[in-house]
Amino acid sequence: MIYLDNAASSHPKPASVLRAVARQIEGNGANPGRSGHNLAMKASQTVFSARKTLAKSFGTDPEIVIFTANTTDAINRALKGILKQGDHVVISDLEHNSVLRPLVALKERGIITFDVAKTERDDGKTLSNFSKCIRSETKLVFCTHASNVTGQILPIHDIGDLCRKMGILFGVDGAQTAGTESYDLQKDPIDLICVPGHKGLLGPQGTGALILSSAFRITPLFEGGTGSDSLSEHQPLTYPEGYESGTLNTPGIAGMEQGVLYTDRHKDEIRAREATLKAIFLEELKKLSAFRILGDTKNSVATVSLVHPRDHSEKIAEWLNRCGICTRGGYHCSALAHRALNTVESGAVRISFGYRNTVKEAVECVKCLKKYQKYFG
Amino acid sequence: MIYLDNAASSHPKPASVLRAVARQIEGNGANPGRSGHNLAMKASQTVFSARKTLAKSFGTDPEIVIFTANTTDAINRALKGILKQGDHVVISDLEHNSVLRPLVALKERGIITFDVAKTERDDGKTLSNFSKCIRSETKLVFCTHASNVTGQILPIHDIGDLCRKMGILFGVDGAQTAGTESYDLQKDPIDLICVPGHKGLLGPQGTGALILSSAFRITPLFEGGTGSDSLSEHQPLTYPEGYESGTLNTPGIAGMEQGVLYTDRHKDEIRAREATLKAIFLEELKKLSAFRILGDTKNSVATVSLVHPRDHSEKIAEWLNRCGICTRGGYHCSALAHRALNTVESGAVRISFGYRNTVKEAVECVKCLKKYQKYFG
Repeated sequence: MIYLDNAASSHPKPASVLRAVARQIEGNGANPGRSGHNLAMKASQTVFSARKTLAKSFGTDPEIVIFTANTTDAINRALKGILKQGDHVVISDLEHNSVLRPLVALKERGIITFDVAKTERDDGKTLSNFSKCIRSETKLVFCTHASNVTGQILPIHDIGDLCRKMGILFGVDGAQTAGTESYDLQKDPIDLICVPGHKGLLGPQGTGALILSSAFRITPLFEGGTGSDSLSEHQPLTYPEGYESGTLNTPGIAGMEQGVLYTDRHKDEIRAREATLKAIFLEELKKLSAFRILGDTKNSVATVSLVHPRDHSEKIAEWLNRCGICTRGGYHCSALAHRALNTVESGAVRISFGYRNTVKEAVECVKCLKKYQKYFG
Repeated sequence: MIYLDNAASSHPKPASVLRAVARQIEGNGANPGRSGHNLAMKASQTVFSARKTLAKSFGTDPEIVIFTANTTDAINRALKGILKQGDHVVISDLEHNSVLRPLVALKERGIITFDVAKTERDDGKTLSNFSKCIRSETKLVFCTHASNVTGQILPIHDIGDLCRKMGILFGVDGAQTAGTESYDLQKDPIDLICVPGHKGLLGPQGTGALILSSAFRITPLFEGGTGSDSLSEHQPLTYPEGYESGTLNTPGIAGMEQGVLYTDRHKDEIRAREATLKAIFLEELKKLSAFRILGDTKNSVATVSLVHPRDHSEKIAEWLNRCGICTRGGYHCSALAHRALNTVESGAVRISFGYRNTVKEAVECVKCLKKYQKYFG
């Protein structure tokens, strides 16, 4: 199988990831932060080490790295923890359903309102569109760093600068960029970023994080045991434990740490390799007249989506699957993006490269698409 | 090290648990339920197999087994998904902070009210106390099957029968019992149960489930991508995907399945072994005059808590730790229980046995407590 579905979840993982997970499951089942004995303390150290590694990688403090089960979990905690009655939010038209659906739910409960800023190929125009959506009640601007459909990169630094000037919080969905793009929350105009452990960061599924730039107050979405202040019936509002109720995924977190260490060590190499794969793939793909490539592929991560003028994307993805190539057809949990791209009928075939893919694999994918064009037109 | 902290998280795990996790992390990083290619379908099958295994074990249907990150996650989703403005809830006085704190938060937001029913050694009296707390606005009775402090088992079947008669939902916190007690949600008067994967079910940390007896409607706490109905801006209210937004912890879920299969296969043996360990431990412990044993140890799981008339429990747990024995002092995230037990000053030393502990280990723990008595009185 040729795996070109890294935007959904990366595969394969560095060997160090499994080793860290296995060490934990086999060697230490103790609960981190719950007891004082040696094994529990070791588990706490494992979690704290991962917290420090993430903090260093994202340029923030360890205690404001909040471990979550995935990006959706992180985004829900951020949106529902920050937004209060009467607040207004601005998002882009390329947001994933993990951003759109919580906001729609909050809007329908009469809590918030939100506007969708149109993205353009011209960053200046995108910025201007965001600017036009901002109102006096705008509490938060939240947008993805890169579209999970087209891979297009949004000008988050410009948008963040605008937010800083206007005193508005700025949050980023790093689902498609964490691991390949670099962040420094002490310098970047970003107040929070939501990241998956299992995509570009090359960790195991079941991991993610909500990472803050400073310890501003958000309301926890969950309350429960925190291993601290146990006699209080109130959730302690201390970072990180007040925001991580329940037993943490210690093996997953240990694995995620290894993924972060790996991507930090090899970031330039991974970026260069993925960029090459994308370039070669696009060059070959452009020779096929049957497919239209979506979005701006110049300013994008190593994700390419294509449509056929007649056939539904699922049919093409299934063809590729029969050729032994894993891609994703359909709508990629992105109602907004497919509306913006005018691909509600067909969906799109998404090809997303990872650090272990080869030029041969990229070329093989185009060959299979060429066969599709030959057989089905 | 002698590990007697299984009530916090079980250790060690059956070898099959790590094997299943490793198979997933190493062999298949694809996202279950997101794409249609072979690897993604295999990941979906892995998750569905676990869903069927849990459903069979708990006597319910696979689609109403909702995977969560831990029990706290499951409890928050249940409470916040079920309770609406004006609802009243009844809980026991042995509830974990994962039940108390969400309810206090909902109460302080003016959404619900709740009452705490006193538990007694006499099940009839406990039932009567629950009965007295029920009002016309009572929507839900929620209680733990066994105290995480004393191990005391609550008469959940009687409480459930009462709820059925009165048309009130009944939820159970199975954090201390899943894996050793048996459930059949088609027969038991239980509407939902929240379970950890990583305690008695012997799975990895980062896993848990909210398991329903029927597909009654609850409001999802998270919205996001579901891999279904992707063009809709509304969260689909279909089980299970509408309640599992975001990428699932496939390796963890695969590991949890192996834990469930193991405990289902060995349940009688595990129960018998843990009961023997508890009995021998108690018999020896009763010879030491320095310690008072908390709660009803006859009708309880294999968890024993003790207090010293003068010393704080943390001091004793630290002594045991120096003897190489892992137990938990302090308050066990249970404000209510320690108030009910009148142990707010001292906390308690909790000794919780697991399926791999031995008589020698139980006796060794008492020997160390005997030394404590000798040296410190």
